[in-house]
Amino acid sequence: MKISELSRRTGVPVASIKYFRRQGLLPAGRATAATLAEYGEEHAERLRLIKALTTLGGLSIAATREVLGAVDQADTTEGALGAISYALPVPVASSQGGADEAEDAEAEEAAGTEVAELLASLDWRAPETSPHVRGLTAALKELRRLDAQYAPGELAAYARLAESVARLDLERAECLDDPVALAERAVIVFAICAPVFELLRRLAQEDQVRRRMTDEDAAGPPSGCGPH
Amino acid sequence: MKISELSRRTGVPVASIKYFRRQGLLPAGRATAATLAEYGEEHAERLRLIKALTTLGGLSIAATREVLGAVDQADTTEGALGAISYALPVPVASSQGGADEAEDAEAEEAAGTEVAELLASLDWRAPETSPHVRGLTAALKELRRLDAQYAPGELAAYARLAESVARLDLERAECLDDPVALAERAVIVFAICAPVFELLRRLAQEDQVRRRMTDEDAAGPPSGCGPH
Repeated sequence: MKISELSRRTGVPVASIKYFRRQGLLPAGRATAATLAEYGEEHAERLRLIKALTTLGGLSIAATREVLGAVDQADTTEGALGAISYALPVPVASSQGGADEAEDAEAEEAAGTEVAELLASLDWRAPETSPHVRGLTAALKELRRLDAQYAPGELAAYARLAESVARLDLERAECLDDPVALAERAVIVFAICAPVFELLRRLAQEDQVRRRMTDEDAAGPPSGCGPH
Repeated sequence: MKISELSRRTGVPVASIKYFRRQGLLPAGRATAATLAEYGEEHAERLRLIKALTTLGGLSIAATREVLGAVDQADTTEGALGAISYALPVPVASSQGGADEAEDAEAEEAAGTEVAELLASLDWRAPETSPHVRGLTAALKELRRLDAQYAPGELAAYARLAESVARLDLERAECLDDPVALAERAVIVFAICAPVFELLRRLAQEDQVRRRMTDEDAAGPPSGCGPH
């Protein structure tokens, strides 16, 4: 198909298609003349994925390029999932320069211990170099500096729920046989379904807040307020 | 304290403090001379919150201003939580112009029905005008266009886990008495703990992928692959 047809089929403007081509996100079409190229189904598929990653997933062009590279190189299911998981941007940026250096170092160490103890207690295997371990440590450090750290046991309670969510995620990613289709699905599950879960959580919060406002006896006392 | 001391205490550079002042995020200090102002503990507290929202929470200046406005106006716990929940940016942007208009309208309607049925089946109360309802509808529409929609029951399984997470969230936000402290804590729980949960989910995924790679018998077959 011509670029105009590719644009119509995918809803991506011709100028954006050309931009993705120049940025190396989309392979070249088959040249049919000096200024004409023929595109196939694989271009439409890739373009839909690029569009989903950049708009719904909110990924930058550089991050999208990295994720697509991981998808193209994956040979096994687990390899694909692992590569994609590491290629996707980590939700929390490292926290910026601390208030007081000693305080900062103390918060960093306490957060590191908190993460290590959590992983050990759950028997989760993740190397210290994992971007997720580093991201979690940075987030917990920031919460400590805000004096809003999790009470003992709270983080583990969240982690157990996260484990159940991850199990659903992997089941969804495993339902495809073709490795490329699977890799693409994995990207969608990892990158795009995270906001869906966050929205479900917000809706559940909204529902619970509304119940507390209209329905006094549904509230009940907080089950346990830890030290803050 | 002087602005230099405020900067040292909070780790926010003087230039950033002045910027937040000009942007109306931080109240003015008490003027002690034509070019000097005295800042108090409340400025340090507010500044730490602004820093957390803009760096760890990744909020824009405009979104931060909106959230702080909601915090300042809240009079009841539930009012504060509700206002903050609506003021915080919704994780998913509305999806951009569709491929085919008829296909687009069909996906929009199917996604709307999916959300309405989900809310009814869970007995979650949320008005159609809720930004979370609209965000979820946009996300499900995009997944449909990618042919990656949830299988029947999958979304409800995620939603039940989200409900448990929301319950933990509200318990954490309820542990403070002072309304302003509570509102600030709620912002942290809503805006900053979302990435923490996402990191826990990624770590759990990482652990499960690693187990499947090293430990064949731990894998087990997918429990049910829906239509795709």
